[in-house]
Amino acid sequence: MTKNSSNIMALTPNTSNKRETVCIFGTGDFGRALGHKMIQSGYPVVYGSRSTQISNLIPKDAEVLGHAEAAQKAAIIIIAIQRQHYNFLTPLAEVLRGKVLVDISNNLKLNQYPESNAEYLAQLLPGSKVVKGFNTVSAWALQSGTLDASRQVFVCGDDVEAKQMVMDIVRALGLTPVDKGSLLAAQEIENYPLQLFPMWKFPLFLSLGLTAFFFLYCVALDIIYTYIYEKNNFSFFIAITIPNRVCPVVALILLALVYLPGIFAAIIQLYRGTKYRRFPDWLDKWMLCRKQLGLVALAFASLHAVFTLVTPMRAFVSWRTSKGIISQALNNKTEPLNNTNAWLSDSYLALGILGYFLFVLLGITSLPSVSNNVNWREFRFVQSKLGYLALILCTAHTLVYGGKWFLSPSAYKWYLPNIYMLSLVVPCAVLVVKFVLIFPCVDKRLTQIRQGWERKPKYSE
Amino acid sequence: MTKNSSNIMALTPNTSNKRETVCIFGTGDFGRALGHKMIQSGYPVVYGSRSTQISNLIPKDAEVLGHAEAAQKAAIIIIAIQRQHYNFLTPLAEVLRGKVLVDISNNLKLNQYPESNAEYLAQLLPGSKVVKGFNTVSAWALQSGTLDASRQVFVCGDDVEAKQMVMDIVRALGLTPVDKGSLLAAQEIENYPLQLFPMWKFPLFLSLGLTAFFFLYCVALDIIYTYIYEKNNFSFFIAITIPNRVCPVVALILLALVYLPGIFAAIIQLYRGTKYRRFPDWLDKWMLCRKQLGLVALAFASLHAVFTLVTPMRAFVSWRTSKGIISQALNNKTEPLNNTNAWLSDSYLALGILGYFLFVLLGITSLPSVSNNVNWREFRFVQSKLGYLALILCTAHTLVYGGKWFLSPSAYKWYLPNIYMLSLVVPCAVLVVKFVLIFPCVDKRLTQIRQGWERKPKYSE
Amino acid sequence: MTKNSSNIMALTPNTSNKRETVCIFGTGDFGRALGHKMIQSGYPVVYGSRSTQISNLIPKDAEVLGHAEAAQKAAIIIIAIQRQHYNFLTPLAEVLRGKVLVDISNNLKLNQYPESNAEYLAQLLPGSKVVKGFNTVSAWALQSGTLDASRQVFVCGDDVEAKQMVMDIVRALGLTPVDKGSLLAAQEIENYPLQLFPMWKFPLFLSLGLTAFFFLYCVALDIIYTYIYEKNNFSFFIAITIPNRVCPVVALILLALVYLPGIFAAIIQLYRGTKYRRFPDWLDKWMLCRKQLGLVALAFASLHAVFTLVTPMRAFVSWRTSKGIISQALNNKTEPLNNTNAWLSDSYLALGILGYFLFVLLGITSLPSVSNNVNWREFRFVQSKLGYLALILCTAHTLVYGGKWFLSPSAYKWYLPNIYMLSLVVPCAVLVVKFVLIFPCVDKRLTQIRQGWERKPKYSE
Repeated sequence: MTKNSSNIMALTPNTSNKRETVCIFGTGDFGRALGHKMIQSGYPVVYGSRSTQISNLIPKDAEVLGHAEAAQKAAIIIIAIQRQHYNFLTPLAEVLRGKVLVDISNNLKLNQYPESNAEYLAQLLPGSKVVKGFNTVSAWALQSGTLDASRQVFVCGDDVEAKQMVMDIVRALGLTPVDKGSLLAAQEIENYPLQLFPMWKFPLFLSLGLTAFFFLYCVALDIIYTYIYEKNNFSFFIAITIPNRVCPVVALILLALVYLPGIFAAIIQLYRGTKYRRFPDWLDKWMLCRKQLGLVALAFASLHAVFTLVTPMRAFVSWRTSKGIISQALNNKTEPLNNTNAWLSDSYLALGILGYFLFVLLGITSLPSVSNNVNWREFRFVQSKLGYLALILCTAHTLVYGGKWFLSPSAYKWYLPNIYMLSLVVPCAVLVVKFVLIFPCVDKRLTQIRQGWERKPKYSE
Repeated sequence: MTKNSSNIMALTPNTSNKRETVCIFGTGDFGRALGHKMIQSGYPVVYGSRSTQISNLIPKDAEVLGHAEAAQKAAIIIIAIQRQHYNFLTPLAEVLRGKVLVDISNNLKLNQYPESNAEYLAQLLPGSKVVKGFNTVSAWALQSGTLDASRQVFVCGDDVEAKQMVMDIVRALGLTPVDKGSLLAAQEIENYPLQLFPMWKFPLFLSLGLTAFFFLYCVALDIIYTYIYEKNNFSFFIAITIPNRVCPVVALILLALVYLPGIFAAIIQLYRGTKYRRFPDWLDKWMLCRKQLGLVALAFASLHAVFTLVTPMRAFVSWRTSKGIISQALNNKTEPLNNTNAWLSDSYLALGILGYFLFVLLGITSLPSVSNNVNWREFRFVQSKLGYLALILCTAHTLVYGGKWFLSPSAYKWYLPNIYMLSLVVPCAVLVVKFVLIFPCVDKRLTQIRQGWERKPKYSE
Repeated sequence: MTKNSSNIMALTPNTSNKRETVCIFGTGDFGRALGHKMIQSGYPVVYGSRSTQISNLIPKDAEVLGHAEAAQKAAIIIIAIQRQHYNFLTPLAEVLRGKVLVDISNNLKLNQYPESNAEYLAQLLPGSKVVKGFNTVSAWALQSGTLDASRQVFVCGDDVEAKQMVMDIVRALGLTPVDKGSLLAAQEIENYPLQLFPMWKFPLFLSLGLTAFFFLYCVALDIIYTYIYEKNNFSFFIAITIPNRVCPVVALILLALVYLPGIFAAIIQLYRGTKYRRFPDWLDKWMLCRKQLGLVALAFASLHAVFTLVTPMRAFVSWRTSKGIISQALNNKTEPLNNTNAWLSDSYLALGILGYFLFVLLGITSLPSVSNNVNWREFRFVQSKLGYLALILCTAHTLVYGGKWFLSPSAYKWYLPNIYMLSLVVPCAVLVVKFVLIFPCVDKRLTQIRQGWERKPKYSE
């Protein structure tokens, strides 16, 4: 790229050796990848290894020495060896005294050991300053340069200066350090890369459970019932018709479940007359996964939207439409426009569209980069005002859609209600209670409580 | 979680007391929440309070002392009391001399006081170093740990070191400090949490105004006119038909309004022969809310897209289609394929789809996390080149859609044009003027001006 | 805004002069904009200029002096002049000794000079500490305050303290400094603002090439063939019918090409028995642009979805439907529901919907702000597990759609296969080889290799 690279090379030694030497214990996969990246970023790297035999996999510009000699060359030592072998470090305690030891280890499962690896290391070498870090980055990401996933490197440690030194290295490698506090946070940091969407588990399992239940319910009523009593084989309903009944039902229930814990919290606070007592644990957990519940609901609503839009393209629908038109033509008559039907059809579609539109807006606002750019007042306006409006519109959409069948006996096959009737229970309950809660007399008291007022203030003497 | 927690606890006192003690004046809601979070992050916290009586709401590990004693224990004092009570601090001026005072107060409305709370505090206690901060975080967010909204904490202050100390605490609490400069920025920071989408107000009001106007215009022409002259009750047009006429019109006008200020700016610069004179205020404001205008336009365009896609599902449309087919069948004839119609219908749909596709692309690019990852050249390429292409495609979509009716007298009910004709005025004007501006002779001059060239360079002597 | 502004003004001088004076050489466009912004942020600014004549464009609060006097007033000097004039700085070498020089220059094209401007400056003035920075920000963005594009300011330099000083200024201006390491990175930083989506070039050109090829292929088979042999003019197919055949084909091929390099990599690693030898260059580049390939595929898939959904609104489709119904009505018969057809139609739609749904999910996960919030395990779960599921669903969608025509001779016009048959080659190959690779015996070996195992470990002696 540069033609007078000789010049540049002449300049480099004078300048880049301002970076402090870093020592890496262990020449395994991650140790090598990290060393390579550090050399690229201008750090002199020295490896501490049992064998003085140099693997050709070790970066060329790095030195390889015995552990003790390597440690003496640097103020920061990265411990790229596995926890099982930490005890071999104890004889080196004198050499490592006062040095910054960076624990980059990961475990194979959550809470594998009673204490975190970094705390274990700190106990083994009480004279050294242990900092946890780098465990959230993969060797492959460092090697390939494709840091598509998180660039965040969580760092924790008890010594503030040691932590600062490590965070400077993190920054120099093009990553983003995040200070997580004292070494007590090491367990959390070590568990982080082992997690698989922990906040999503409850919403996903709940929605899968609801989906399975309603799917079987629909198969029974729409396919089996029709087959038994009307001798019609509508098994192909499994592909689109039934999913398109189940998706809106699950979406509406999940959306209502997003707002239900807020209702519970308000009732509990009103009953207790204070906001300073902790909510029950289940309510706390429920409130923390409301965003995920809402996004799963949005996914189901989106599927419902697309399933609905492809309706005119289905062979079954074309056939049904043709049949209807042909029978009218053969009977030589044209049905007049039913104005009530036109109103119902158009308004249920319009309500659904507007509800879904607000729902998508809520989803966009929950993108991290968008929610980082709004203040609390705006966030609450969107998530609470617009959220309730979306819930009202979607509930109204369902009511208008099925309203005419509520009193029709033919809608109750095997004396069971249709699933859209079941789907209305939770949203209507939420909306009714919320309507009570925004009555001025109730709302005023709730606002007072949330601003710190207490019915019976308690002071310990 | 950890079994040998006794060990860890033994370690903690030695290590985490490296954090400096923080003093909090005031044991109100926010003071308690902040203290709690700080203790969690390893800061020793001491409360300064009028009453030595200790509420059981105060975090257990915190000390509670009188104001003076508490202040002496810490270098940083967080003033968690309301502005009205600031004057009680004046007797403590001696104790607070040289200390860092963190003003975390918020007001109830924008610009409530002539000077910001932090500046008022600095005037009361000129010997202390006042730093503004934490006012953008809510007590509830700190308590619950759900920092879904902004994690950004704006910090300002005149003393650089004091500010640095506060920013370190912010970081330690897992929040992101943003240095906003000297204490002069305090007013802005205090106004921030009171804002409700300030940049969105003009675009939203404008679009609501346009929507209301066009809606009434359509109601008059499509429902009232039809009812009077054709005795048809098409009141259900309110639900879908009319919204689907209004949405694309508003979207197209707003999209044109995104590019209109750029046209004005170019004309003004060409006329003045310099880029160094400020634009009129209205133009400046208009240019700053172009992104919001564009996103509102995208929202209307999306509604138009969905309203259009549900068309075949409407009872009215099914009825109209059936009627047409039945009348053909009863007359025993089949209309041949009208090739021109097929061309017009397909090309207007294709133009709309491509225009909308580019529009969505522009929307995605304006997401903060995406626009942060492109450089200026790329951002301008997308927003200007692709943006104009979207405007051209959408204008062409409207022209092809309604082209055949321009010269038909039946399209002018009550001698008024249809609204899609009105919608074409601004976009066509923008496109025509832009076409003139990219003529080489004009464009060359404009480029010179934008690179700093001036027709009559002025130097003050 | 503030009424007692006199008070505030009295306070300001005492406080904001803690910011160090900054000197700017050059009073051009960018120098003025930067100076203006710095004064706003509380920095005293002094301009170094050839002429003592003061342009009224220079910010009012700034001083203008000769170069030497200006330089003496500040520790940081911003070099806002063009590279061609750098040599006029050599006489000032003594004055500039030990000062921090900030090179903010940009070039007109990539790699315009053999060495970067900043390195050239450092060679001219070896006694000064050169830092590269600010070149990614535009003067217009600084002036207007609309920093919609990147707020990131890349900074590099050999002197750590000098770099730190510059990064502090960047932060104070409300921008985000990103430390890119030593001055060797200057060339990369200078090239950055000249780039136009470098990672997108290959995916875009590839997709445009594929689109052009398949479009012409379709025009030949669907329009020209029909015109010659059936005398039907279906030229309007160009608008929607053919795009809606080309888009899914290109989308499916591109999606398969996202997973193909991973297959190649696995085969190469298995063959070599090690992961420590570099992949061929073309494979490396291919792997780095997989995200872009996937997003282009998503764009084509979205166009396909919308083109499909507008189908019932097309004049041609309405005409075809009417014709079919009328001919049935005139023949006085109703076709019964074809259950196989209903199954095929519904399941191909359902497969497409689910595949597209997963595809959109992958797209959302690749938004920078979302992918920054997932850990590696989660990112790989989404991109690999869900990605393959999307590929399987989309391939099945295509197979079910066209399955019945594979053996029908009428599908082979001019003995050429239809394009959906061509589109299945790559995805099916990828899925078959992947199926072999997840056989336990193969997968186990691959996992070993990826964890660092080698068939023939090599050590240099």
